[in-house]
Amino acid sequence: MTPKKLMMICCMLSAAALAAGGAWAAEKQAAPASPPISEATQACLDCHSLATPGIVADWKKSRMAKRTPAMGLKAPEMERRITAKAADIPREWLDVAVGCAECHTLRAEKHPATFDHEGFQVHTVVSPEDCATCHTQERREFGQNLMAHARGNLINNPVYMDLADHVNAVVKVTGGKAAYLKPTPGDEAESCLYCHGTEIKADGQRVINNPAMGEVTVTKLSGWPNRGVGRKNPDGSLGSCTACHTRHQFSIAMARKPAACAECHKGPDVPAYKVYEVSEHGGIYRAMGGTWDFQALPWTVGRDFSAPTCAACHVSLLVSADGAVLAKRSHRMNDRLWVRLIGLIYSHPHPKDPDTSKIKNAEGRSLATALDGRPAASYLIDEKEQEARRETMSKVCLACHGTQWVDGQLRERLTASTAAADAMVLAATRTMQEAWRKGLATGPAKGGSPFDEYIEQLWTEQWLFHANSMRMASAMMGADMGVFESGRWNLHKNLSHMRDWLQTRQDPAR
Amino acid sequence: MTPKKLMMICCMLSAAALAAGGAWAAEKQAAPASPPISEATQACLDCHSLATPGIVADWKKSRMAKRTPAMGLKAPEMERRITAKAADIPREWLDVAVGCAECHTLRAEKHPATFDHEGFQVHTVVSPEDCATCHTQERREFGQNLMAHARGNLINNPVYMDLADHVNAVVKVTGGKAAYLKPTPGDEAESCLYCHGTEIKADGQRVINNPAMGEVTVTKLSGWPNRGVGRKNPDGSLGSCTACHTRHQFSIAMARKPAACAECHKGPDVPAYKVYEVSEHGGIYRAMGGTWDFQALPWTVGRDFSAPTCAACHVSLLVSADGAVLAKRSHRMNDRLWVRLIGLIYSHPHPKDPDTSKIKNAEGRSLATALDGRPAASYLIDEKEQEARRETMSKVCLACHGTQWVDGQLRERLTASTAAADAMVLAATRTMQEAWRKGLATGPAKGGSPFDEYIEQLWTEQWLFHANSMRMASAMMGADMGVFESGRWNLHKNLSHMRDWLQTRQDPAR
Amino acid sequence: MTPKKLMMICCMLSAAALAAGGAWAAEKQAAPASPPISEATQACLDCHSLATPGIVADWKKSRMAKRTPAMGLKAPEMERRITAKAADIPREWLDVAVGCAECHTLRAEKHPATFDHEGFQVHTVVSPEDCATCHTQERREFGQNLMAHARGNLINNPVYMDLADHVNAVVKVTGGKAAYLKPTPGDEAESCLYCHGTEIKADGQRVINNPAMGEVTVTKLSGWPNRGVGRKNPDGSLGSCTACHTRHQFSIAMARKPAACAECHKGPDVPAYKVYEVSEHGGIYRAMGGTWDFQALPWTVGRDFSAPTCAACHVSLLVSADGAVLAKRSHRMNDRLWVRLIGLIYSHPHPKDPDTSKIKNAEGRSLATALDGRPAASYLIDEKEQEARRETMSKVCLACHGTQWVDGQLRERLTASTAAADAMVLAATRTMQEAWRKGLATGPAKGGSPFDEYIEQLWTEQWLFHANSMRMASAMMGADMGVFESGRWNLHKNLSHMRDWLQTRQDPAR
Repeated sequence: MTPKKLMMICCMLSAAALAAGGAWAAEKQAAPASPPISEATQACLDCHSLATPGIVADWKKSRMAKRTPAMGLKAPEMERRITAKAADIPREWLDVAVGCAECHTLRAEKHPATFDHEGFQVHTVVSPEDCATCHTQERREFGQNLMAHARGNLINNPVYMDLADHVNAVVKVTGGKAAYLKPTPGDEAESCLYCHGTEIKADGQRVINNPAMGEVTVTKLSGWPNRGVGRKNPDGSLGSCTACHTRHQFSIAMARKPAACAECHKGPDVPAYKVYEVSEHGGIYRAMGGTWDFQALPWTVGRDFSAPTCAACHVSLLVSADGAVLAKRSHRMNDRLWVRLIGLIYSHPHPKDPDTSKIKNAEGRSLATALDGRPAASYLIDEKEQEARRETMSKVCLACHGTQWVDGQLRERLTASTAAADAMVLAATRTMQEAWRKGLATGPAKGGSPFDEYIEQLWTEQWLFHANSMRMASAMMGADMGVFESGRWNLHKNLSHMRDWLQTRQDPAR
Repeated sequence: MTPKKLMMICCMLSAAALAAGGAWAAEKQAAPASPPISEATQACLDCHSLATPGIVADWKKSRMAKRTPAMGLKAPEMERRITAKAADIPREWLDVAVGCAECHTLRAEKHPATFDHEGFQVHTVVSPEDCATCHTQERREFGQNLMAHARGNLINNPVYMDLADHVNAVVKVTGGKAAYLKPTPGDEAESCLYCHGTEIKADGQRVINNPAMGEVTVTKLSGWPNRGVGRKNPDGSLGSCTACHTRHQFSIAMARKPAACAECHKGPDVPAYKVYEVSEHGGIYRAMGGTWDFQALPWTVGRDFSAPTCAACHVSLLVSADGAVLAKRSHRMNDRLWVRLIGLIYSHPHPKDPDTSKIKNAEGRSLATALDGRPAASYLIDEKEQEARRETMSKVCLACHGTQWVDGQLRERLTASTAAADAMVLAATRTMQEAWRKGLATGPAKGGSPFDEYIEQLWTEQWLFHANSMRMASAMMGADMGVFESGRWNLHKNLSHMRDWLQTRQDPAR
Repeated sequence: MTPKKLMMICCMLSAAALAAGGAWAAEKQAAPASPPISEATQACLDCHSLATPGIVADWKKSRMAKRTPAMGLKAPEMERRITAKAADIPREWLDVAVGCAECHTLRAEKHPATFDHEGFQVHTVVSPEDCATCHTQERREFGQNLMAHARGNLINNPVYMDLADHVNAVVKVTGGKAAYLKPTPGDEAESCLYCHGTEIKADGQRVINNPAMGEVTVTKLSGWPNRGVGRKNPDGSLGSCTACHTRHQFSIAMARKPAACAECHKGPDVPAYKVYEVSEHGGIYRAMGGTWDFQALPWTVGRDFSAPTCAACHVSLLVSADGAVLAKRSHRMNDRLWVRLIGLIYSHPHPKDPDTSKIKNAEGRSLATALDGRPAASYLIDEKEQEARRETMSKVCLACHGTQWVDGQLRERLTASTAAADAMVLAATRTMQEAWRKGLATGPAKGGSPFDEYIEQLWTEQWLFHANSMRMASAMMGADMGVFESGRWNLHKNLSHMRDWLQTRQDPAR
């Protein structure tokens, strides 16, 4: 080798190092510069780099643009992202990048919203069944997950729909009287169904006018836009993989970061992200996460990351630096969950079936507990299954914490906190029932909704906001979220407010 | 080349690569090591590297320290930051870095707060007119922007000042009676005017004692400190460029990141940042933004960044990877806004004039809508202009989303959500008016403020917090911010509370 | 040197550069690849890389794993992290990494929770006294800090414990009556003591079953888990260094970032982090902090970082680029604090003694002010000491701001805002006292708690949430946190609510 040649190589190496400088979590195995792109995808790109340049550029950064399914299939088992067998993947896909046409023209006959677009049979809404072509196991697991049923578990539950109707309706005040109007599909889509998922249906044709491309005829979609995790797609499937693996990079890094979960788990009714943010785990992530490797497969505890994100505890395949498996990947998040804590009047063991609309409590309502907290046990997992799932989760914790730490938190403290939160809900429930009995409000027994009067709305916040938050804060060690932010203090103050309300109406001047 | 020499070069290259490792978004074109510094600025630096070392070190990292105006003028049009003509820039500036003296001694005669400081005629408060020396167009646009008028639009509006007085005053309780005191200028400066802007005025002289430099005589400033976006500067100009382009790096990266906007747009009255944070766009930014290029000019959608920040939608020059312009840069944010959503009782078309204190509604009040929601149409843009601005914004969205997605959100859902939020405000307004009519509270018709009694404060939160949040959540797809955090649920609960209050006072025991 | 050898060196250099690419803030002085590890620590690692792989991998990234105390002692004074003298460090420690055994077997005889573990005398809970082996001065300072006394200052204060009991107890409603039960130690540990600190005690032995290692006998710990900053350790010491220097990297970078403080300072009762987040300083940190050097010692203002974090203002050793010391490091945060703003009914000068449970106000209560706001002056620092501490803090501000800016904020505006917030608390206090006098609620004079009735809980929020937030927002320039988020507006609305409540009970129909 001549010095000159050597110099060139060094420069190239140095330049590469410089270029990689900004890249946070560089891909460990360099992919070939650019795998072949199918003719169909190339045709898409030709126009869409003008029509929708953002997503084209975004897709070009994706792993799917940089590798072919055949490459993916060759990876060692622990590093594989594709869980389909080679034989189940369309032959013509194997050696091309997974691009526009691969996903948006796949299974055209199964998609009622397919339309002819420049000679291609295109569907806008890619469904989990499309993704299942390569990610078979993930789709199967996710289908058994509560989240895939998020829409039906709301829509088919009369109690929750009664709440939803009293959230989404507009109230009209005329002549000193207030009346709830009926919510429109648009109100619902922009509210509960934003996360739970709309139903997307083909609804004839429509001519759109793209600034770059002019007029185009497409299938008109109702229920669109929506990216709810439990949406019903035009092909009848449930769910949306891109709810977490955001379009059009579909990055595992995105799904592993807490921001992916935050969009739907941040409100006071589902405060998981708020609790995480204030937890020590969340603090470590915010402070140190900039240097972690969110692309690595499998994900090595302590080396790739120093504190768990949502995905680490609930989904990801985790290994030790020695390669020992600490947790198997599962898109059926229920696998590591033994007790339901949020969105519920009282906590209870996890349901057996992800379709919770089938559950009936002792009072015949679609709830997993009676109004006094008794669980609808036959629909729920038993203690043995609870114990097994707690063990599965504990193994994640034990990667960094001692057994006494984990038992102390996940067994003793969490159990005590959920019991205390549930007791504070019971106190509020009895107060509301007293109001109903005394005719100060109208409950279901007299044909009223439990969600439309002030005392009832205070009761709703008792469980939906404060007990929720207190239970979740204990599960994830979220400190003040369970005390003064929306926890023990708020449960007390809200109960005092309810009791004061009741007392004043019985004896106005005390 | 000898091996030794070669070795040295390699080491240097490697060292450079190492050094660049931490740099997130390296400047694409390396600037010369250090452009000349004017004698005046050098004199400043000599002392101020001791007196205020933080800002000296910070300025040294700035683009202004690394380039001269002459260099900036040579950039191709799309990459130019300077919008003045060469002829309008002081000759002595052209070939020096833009340093302390360039900005703080410029237009000395126009700055009544100028003082003699070590032989230099210095003013502390650099105004937009100073920045306009190089950034002419930005200053002109910003002057036509609502934000430049943020102070006057509050101070000169009797309705909003009535609210402000009831926020800023202290209440004294004596002998069982409560009385509002008068707010002081200090109360106002630390409250509304923190963001809206104080008036900064020269107020004589003052001797200060800097720990490093000893006694110095300076112009005494009233209304200081303040960096409000609509502040009135000693030279009479309105606004503060450093509200977004933070001192003393004045970085475009800072202004393009959501944190720049968050300081003034985070509270429940202006929840834009809260909505962004919980939106998918915000989630992608948090998860993936660490690798984006926030310095690039123009800003290439999909390549430089994968999801919009505040600036991307509202301000920045955006292009596709092919160089097509998707949106022109404009510091008149109104250009892409067709409807006002926040800080208002009801939503309404954007005002024609950025000075909104001129508006009068049908009742003669300084509001863009009557108390029943009717718009003061003659002061507001018409439907055609609304449509044109919506189109301008839509082009930003269309970079990544299809027409049906954009229309569905920005046209159908946003329109429906704002109508629903406004209807919930109307229901609350009618309830408050009922209380006024029945003598249970004292409204303006009987000389009372609409902001000083409990029922009125509930009404205020109906629009200022909850309708605000619901409207904004729909505009930016912020999910739970418009439902349970401070949206539909809260509008209902608050209205129930108001109606319950009214009913109880009419029939205490029900 | 042969070209081949040279090539190898270049490759290695380039590879190192690549590897460092992701590292945000690379250590400036490269440490030797791996210092010797003691035999005892190696024995720990052999099993614990299987038993608790996460913390082993995490520790390997720590500075303690990469350097020996002897190396640390050699650093120039300004760069030294070790404040013990060489003679006080165990000889056998000097030339090994500070690993598992060094900390967890140290001072075994002083730790009642020590147990025999594979032949080693191990204690789980490492205490500040252990850390003091090397970090003597930090431990001494921290012991004089309010935070080290966080547990006792709560537990030994009857007023605050009365509040705590009414936060942590469960309420039982039976036969139309509500009764507070007694809080359990578990309730307290998961609530107030989560941050204030539990008491951790040895409580016999216990066999645990680690999935990787099988059965192990350990000392059973009560009050565990806990990482509260003021916890009482089994060896009797107070505090937890890892509350901020998180296990097992113990990184100075972590402690310097706001996330370290957020876990305990985020709730509405202690909203420091919320205020920081919405402040300009917080905005600059979020936008630009990714490129700052959080490892550098000393910490150079403007060069290493462009805006202060919590640690910069309250703890860190700060220097200018010229090496001038702007602030000395102090783990006695009180050194830079002259007035207490949060967690208090009224603001007041800092207490002289970090054990605040000794304080008695004019009414004989354990509070630093009487119910009307008069300070218990003899327990508090005097004006001269206040002025000295304000000067110390001002020097941090003056690194970037002019004297008029700093005086205007820290002197004028902060003083006015705390006075206004305190006045709004006084108005609420008088309203509550009116209710007590009129028999509408039961205060301490008649044997009642001031925390268990609705009107009293409104009063509590007046100071604990809203005045807290308003005072803190002024201290740290947090804008809307002091106005609409939980500040001036909320103080007014809450007071109106209290007065409306009072009036209605006196004259139900008005």
